Amino acid sequence: MKALVYRGPGKKQLEDVAKPGLREATDALVRMVKTTICGTDLHIVKGDLPEIEVGRVLGHEGIGIVEEAGTGVRCFREGDRVLISCITTCGKCENCRRGIPSHCEEGGWILGNKIDGTQAEFVRIPFADTSLYRIPENADEDAMVMLSDILPTGYECGVLNGAVKPGDTVAIIGAGPVGLSALMTTQFFAPANRLVIDLEDTRLEVAKKLGATAVINSSDGKAVEKVMALTGGKGVDVAIEAVGVAATFGLCQDIIGVGGHIANIGVHGASVTLHLEKLWSQNITITTRLVDAVTTSLLLRTVMAGRLQPNKLITHHFALEDILKAYDTFGNAGREHALKVILTNA
Amino acid sequence: MKALVYRGPGKKQLEDVAKPGLREATDALVRMVKTTICGTDLHIVKGDLPEIEVGRVLGHEGIGIVEEAGTGVRCFREGDRVLISCITTCGKCENCRRGIPSHCEEGGWILGNKIDGTQAEFVRIPFADTSLYRIPENADEDAMVMLSDILPTGYECGVLNGAVKPGDTVAIIGAGPVGLSALMTTQFFAPANRLVIDLEDTRLEVAKKLGATAVINSSDGKAVEKVMALTGGKGVDVAIEAVGVAATFGLCQDIIGVGGHIANIGVHGASVTLHLEKLWSQNITITTRLVDAVTTSLLLRTVMAGRLQPNKLITHHFALEDILKAYDTFGNAGREHALKVILTNA
Amino acid sequence: MKALVYRGPGKKQLEDVAKPGLREATDALVRMVKTTICGTDLHIVKGDLPEIEVGRVLGHEGIGIVEEAGTGVRCFREGDRVLISCITTCGKCENCRRGIPSHCEEGGWILGNKIDGTQAEFVRIPFADTSLYRIPENADEDAMVMLSDILPTGYECGVLNGAVKPGDTVAIIGAGPVGLSALMTTQFFAPANRLVIDLEDTRLEVAKKLGATAVINSSDGKAVEKVMALTGGKGVDVAIEAVGVAATFGLCQDIIGVGGHIANIGVHGASVTLHLEKLWSQNITITTRLVDAVTTSLLLRTVMAGRLQPNKLITHHFALEDILKAYDTFGNAGREHALKVILTNA
Amino acid sequence: MKALVYRGPGKKQLEDVAKPGLREATDALVRMVKTTICGTDLHIVKGDLPEIEVGRVLGHEGIGIVEEAGTGVRCFREGDRVLISCITTCGKCENCRRGIPSHCEEGGWILGNKIDGTQAEFVRIPFADTSLYRIPENADEDAMVMLSDILPTGYECGVLNGAVKPGDTVAIIGAGPVGLSALMTTQFFAPANRLVIDLEDTRLEVAKKLGATAVINSSDGKAVEKVMALTGGKGVDVAIEAVGVAATFGLCQDIIGVGGHIANIGVHGASVTLHLEKLWSQNITITTRLVDAVTTSLLLRTVMAGRLQPNKLITHHFALEDILKAYDTFGNAGREHALKVILTNA
Repeated sequence: MKALVYRGPGKKQLEDVAKPGLREATDALVRMVKTTICGTDLHIVKGDLPEIEVGRVLGHEGIGIVEEAGTGVRCFREGDRVLISCITTCGKCENCRRGIPSHCEEGGWILGNKIDGTQAEFVRIPFADTSLYRIPENADEDAMVMLSDILPTGYECGVLNGAVKPGDTVAIIGAGPVGLSALMTTQFFAPANRLVIDLEDTRLEVAKKLGATAVINSSDGKAVEKVMALTGGKGVDVAIEAVGVAATFGLCQDIIGVGGHIANIGVHGASVTLHLEKLWSQNITITTRLVDAVTTSLLLRTVMAGRLQPNKLITHHFALEDILKAYDTFGNAGREHALKVILTNA
Repeated sequence: MKALVYRGPGKKQLEDVAKPGLREATDALVRMVKTTICGTDLHIVKGDLPEIEVGRVLGHEGIGIVEEAGTGVRCFREGDRVLISCITTCGKCENCRRGIPSHCEEGGWILGNKIDGTQAEFVRIPFADTSLYRIPENADEDAMVMLSDILPTGYECGVLNGAVKPGDTVAIIGAGPVGLSALMTTQFFAPANRLVIDLEDTRLEVAKKLGATAVINSSDGKAVEKVMALTGGKGVDVAIEAVGVAATFGLCQDIIGVGGHIANIGVHGASVTLHLEKLWSQNITITTRLVDAVTTSLLLRTVMAGRLQPNKLITHHFALEDILKAYDTFGNAGREHALKVILTNA
Repeated sequence: MKALVYRGPGKKQLEDVAKPGLREATDALVRMVKTTICGTDLHIVKGDLPEIEVGRVLGHEGIGIVEEAGTGVRCFREGDRVLISCITTCGKCENCRRGIPSHCEEGGWILGNKIDGTQAEFVRIPFADTSLYRIPENADEDAMVMLSDILPTGYECGVLNGAVKPGDTVAIIGAGPVGLSALMTTQFFAPANRLVIDLEDTRLEVAKKLGATAVINSSDGKAVEKVMALTGGKGVDVAIEAVGVAATFGLCQDIIGVGGHIANIGVHGASVTLHLEKLWSQNITITTRLVDAVTTSLLLRTVMAGRLQPNKLITHHFALEDILKAYDTFGNAGREHALKVILTNA
Repeated sequence: MKALVYRGPGKKQLEDVAKPGLREATDALVRMVKTTICGTDLHIVKGDLPEIEVGRVLGHEGIGIVEEAGTGVRCFREGDRVLISCITTCGKCENCRRGIPSHCEEGGWILGNKIDGTQAEFVRIPFADTSLYRIPENADEDAMVMLSDILPTGYECGVLNGAVKPGDTVAIIGAGPVGLSALMTTQFFAPANRLVIDLEDTRLEVAKKLGATAVINSSDGKAVEKVMALTGGKGVDVAIEAVGVAATFGLCQDIIGVGGHIANIGVHGASVTLHLEKLWSQNITITTRLVDAVTTSLLLRTVMAGRLQPNKLITHHFALEDILKAYDTFGNAGREHALKVILTNA
């Protein structure tokens, strides 16, 4: 079958590889229908995650059709149309039981990481019963792909961890797909003000359409000043970091108000400075989280009820066989005005 | 009247100063019965808090008798025996209403800071109705002094912010009076393991008596290793920082388990390094807090019910007129084996 | 001054009574600008609340201008435009401190009940600092009147006590002003389905405009059947009772799903049957609450941010001197298609 | 094998029945080591649960050794010593995912109810991975049996649903095994006062030993009066109903304070009167719950840490073959001074 294979730092190829088979009774084999590319995939290809083995099929998002289900799989059978969660969940270990399947003893984020992933014609899904979701009949398939990772990521790591409340002022730093997912889902809790901060005006334009009440281009170095002006000097109730660098985490510290929450979503490659000499007395909460995908059912229900339009995050479509072109487009998101790309396995 | 007055960096004196009077209808004048010295007072005297004016009477803890109550005071009258909260609370501003009186617009920590404090024969207490607590008849007066600051500090900033749950493993870093207050009150939530880490064995001995299930002297640089051995390599559920330096905050990051809480109590004078490159994916919560003293009533009730023995934190007694000697003792806590000192105004 | 006075069961009059004055240092005297009539006022006039003294000036809602503030009032002064909370809050007693000012030792619901109320040219407001709210400059005055009682009542007793979550199915029983307030504010939490049940189609039409996703006229006795059909037999996540009779509380029990919440808002005059023989194992939560008005600031902010349009609840306007006519209209709400009426003191 | 079989209302027999075998890949077969009898078993034998089929092997509690594990079982294998939860949990359905496995689509309370149970030499356990718990090496086996049902029942339905907080006054109505389990576990949250109310002095004596701070024999009809005297007329913060009849639920309503919680544990056979005419304004929460057994791991850890001594609830021991005698003893608990009985399969 065709698959996008990591071939070491800077290298990836569309290759013919062996079609996977079931290994455990609780596995399912899924024929991919649609997948996408995540910012994390770009990091892997660059070589930023050296623990990933050369030869790995990438990808941890997508939808497909069950081709075969193991004897221990009770909820799905051949022909079922399914959403693949980026988090594989055994449902049995201590971390799964306490609501942290991102740190599942045998699962977690393993697709396209520790085992072969979804940017392929077929994928083996361990613990299928607890790692797949049935797709309703009249669902928009493109929209479903957004539920594999970025919507739960924005919602869980940003909005829920940020403890957004009605009437709050929320600032989202970074208007990429995940930041915009946080922007969309933060509206579940009716914050009065939703500020979005980014370096690119085109992304900020999208943010306005998706519900930002004010946007700030931070390239002039005056973001703090502007946020303070918008909040009467009080700072924000919730700052959601959706970039993953020291400067943006620093910005969160500069704009957070007394009693506020800083919810980190960004994947950080280096340590940051925490200004405890200022924050120790400010009654601040800082959270980190690898998405647990425990809200996938809820988000699915919300999409089906028409309250979320995740396909607004999709800018480009490709055939799976054109995945290298799709990587180019997504890898130059600024120039291409790209948010999420959809790859279809015809 | 006699009062301990800050006279600039490195200088303090017991002086005769004018007895304070009421300024607002909501003030009360309190004749001090007992007070104590806080680690913060030592910082002030050293000159670490330059915003504090020379001439300020220090102290933000203690109990006394109401000498005079303003016309707007409804809950207290002359002769009432009262506990003075270290946090002055107007009860009306937005921060008070949302449970953060530490950031009260007109109050907060102002005693011995922005206005004259409690290390004196008399003190003026603004917003008396919401900043004083009636002392029950059969209360132990020494114990009551511990309720002005350190018990609510350990409980709110450490235990409540740390979200301690039954069965948890909690590590408390720093076995000074505040760390020990966290140790005592963490037992309200039945954590299975209570580790206390400090550099001094005498303090660790006290910790054992106050409920530590294991103590670790970290002077050999092996605290992380030992905590990991005690937790089967998982780290702790809650790490309470009760020191206020980069090394101990770093230790918290090293021992925190997946999904854990780091609750900072320590007063930090410098920024620290936050290892987001490791923690971004660990589902961690970090909190800071200036004590709000919103649990004073509860703690008072708990002391009266015999569930807390705060006088176990008291090691020395002095007359108020010997306060300079008391500062010497408390300032050399290690050598003197001092925890809290009580000063009595005879 | 003119005031609407209760004269015993079935009797009320617009009378000339003495203008009130300040009694305590913490009182304010407010010149009424706008007031309204509550369903509770109708109950009082009927004689259903025998504890209310003959001669009492009724009314517990409205806005006005501060005419005089006591010496202990710090937040308001003559000329301030203020919103009057239906709950008088001392801010000092144990119940106020634990967030239940509805049971304030000296306050609670006392206006138009234990002391003279707002259906008059002037009203004395005890504990003014904690019982009044400043009205922003560009606020819609009619909208503000809805913040005195019905919006916090619908929100606190219905939505917050019902613990509405994103994706939930919520049923509101009773489409009067309070039920509709619950309907409006439940949307802060993005429930997927919002069912409204009432006996009158005109009210259900309003409910549709205010966000109901389905409406059910229960006069045919088939409400349970219809709710079950709409929920795939599962019942609802949250049932909000906004009527106050046994039949509607019974309906809540019939439609509540496993793990659901029944939030009672209705004022009940008689006991009801609780079907514990069925519900004991259903993991149900039932709540009751007298509004605490602790969310008034939040709701005010939300109205000012344009997220709530409370004047959609207003159907009629009268001059204060025509209050008897207003009582007639409001007392025949069905025939008059009345929701809330506004009375203006010219 | 030997098993206790329900033979219709009033009839039960110790019979030789066929040894069960595996039916699904996710089943395990467990050889029973110890089991016990629950109050519910007595109800079944009386005929109170007509849905239970004649011929059913009773029992839903106990510990044993895995005899055989299905191919889909990953966490357990032959020879493992296991605790059997009274709640069978698939871990996959919507209710399991939202923390309500008591209403699991294929599981819930099925042992000794919809499928054959544990009062036998062998039992088939569906969804073994999520319905069994590994027993630590040095565990007290008798104590473990208490973790199958009564301890999680008292803790989840009583203490957690009652939202017990430090400093609270808690009343437990009914000092049988479940009420005493609530009494033991309520101490995880440091309530200041723990009142236990029952009709029998011998049970109240046990309650004193297990941590009651006051006991009330309600046979004189003065329980309300006494509770009010003990609480200064305020009533209790939490009332835990552990009987299941109208009178005791009524008592809860009579003694509950403003803002309090009534947590029902009792299995009710008939409806009760709810005094909404009094409670509508009292900010009360009432909860019901079938135990979910989601705290079993935590309780197990707590027992192993020495913080809970569940074997204090055990009064009698029998061999499994003497189970009819054990039913007699447990069925005459008052006369026999029986709490829990242990049956050992030699």
